[in-house]
Amino acid sequence: MTTRAGRALLPHPDVRLLEERRLHSGVVFDVLHQRLQLPSGLEQSLDLIAHSGAVCVLARRADGRVLLVRQYRPAASDWLEEIPAGRLEPGEDPLCAARRELEEETGHRAARWRYVRTFLVAPGFASERMHLFEATELTEVPGGGLACDADEELAIRWASPEELLRLEPQDAKTLVAALACLQGGGPQAPPDGASAAT
Amino acid sequence: MTTRAGRALLPHPDVRLLEERRLHSGVVFDVLHQRLQLPSGLEQSLDLIAHSGAVCVLARRADGRVLLVRQYRPAASDWLEEIPAGRLEPGEDPLCAARRELEEETGHRAARWRYVRTFLVAPGFASERMHLFEATELTEVPGGGLACDADEELAIRWASPEELLRLEPQDAKTLVAALACLQGGGPQAPPDGASAAT
Repeated sequence: MTTRAGRALLPHPDVRLLEERRLHSGVVFDVLHQRLQLPSGLEQSLDLIAHSGAVCVLARRADGRVLLVRQYRPAASDWLEEIPAGRLEPGEDPLCAARRELEEETGHRAARWRYVRTFLVAPGFASERMHLFEATELTEVPGGGLACDADEELAIRWASPEELLRLEPQDAKTLVAALACLQGGGPQAPPDGASAAT
Repeated sequence: MTTRAGRALLPHPDVRLLEERRLHSGVVFDVLHQRLQLPSGLEQSLDLIAHSGAVCVLARRADGRVLLVRQYRPAASDWLEEIPAGRLEPGEDPLCAARRELEEETGHRAARWRYVRTFLVAPGFASERMHLFEATELTEVPGGGLACDADEELAIRWASPEELLRLEPQDAKTLVAALACLQGGGPQAPPDGASAAT
């Protein structure tokens, strides 16, 4: 049920799934309609985005500056600067995905990794859970160059944590990364499947 | 094009929309497939969620504690505690929506309002922009009781800003609100349509 052709979105064990229809299956997400009954008896009926989850990387240099990736985001109708991020393949270990995305999107590797926290980006309609990792002791990949997907056009730069707060348009995961930089903000115990470190 | 039957998602003026198909029209979001050409000539083809935007409210008491709303979130398969939030009606003023959601979800009104910031919750696939406001000088609505939607089941409580960081499962907008509490985090100049104060 978590293959490309049909991402699952199972309700909490205390909630009954009365009815489900799959409205769309896509590359990045599926659209489901569910009718549910809560323990109180209350019924809810709504459209949901089933998403396999994602990772993002707060990559910090010794001077405290952070790697940002600039790209056109069709959903935002604009170019955004965000911390490196990417989708999890179904069943993929989040730390493996974080290492891959950092290298593919920025041409950098990190000797130290730390799990920071996991959050839902849009719990009103999307199942996407975002796992944030901190990557330090960075080096450029020898032979460099960015191995991004064929339809991506990326540029990178280094910014101070304070700059993350002033980006425009702003992105939630990049703000959460700023929180982690400026406040400590973590770590928590890693969730199932988000391995802890190095 | 922004009526219930068809939310628009227009590309940046420098980007050409080569093709668009509407895959689904729902109550909360629509699903579009777009094929785009960037200024460089690069083509991108992807599914997108068109969403009318939302507001969320950091409602703080004089002792610094913040209002949280607990509810079942089908997309998260769990009960979440989040700051009060709700969808914008197409064309609606964000501050008006913030006042309404605070009163409907929590039975509270605020004498002072401050725009904090706007961010994209999931710029990889969703157009939703979230406008965060801070509400202070709070009072309970006389005659009280929560006037939530018929399919909602809400409970409220007061939490310290530090508690916002430890909620499980976590929600991005509630983490951004924690950032605003703990760091200052704003204000920015309000965007078009997000009126500034009081």
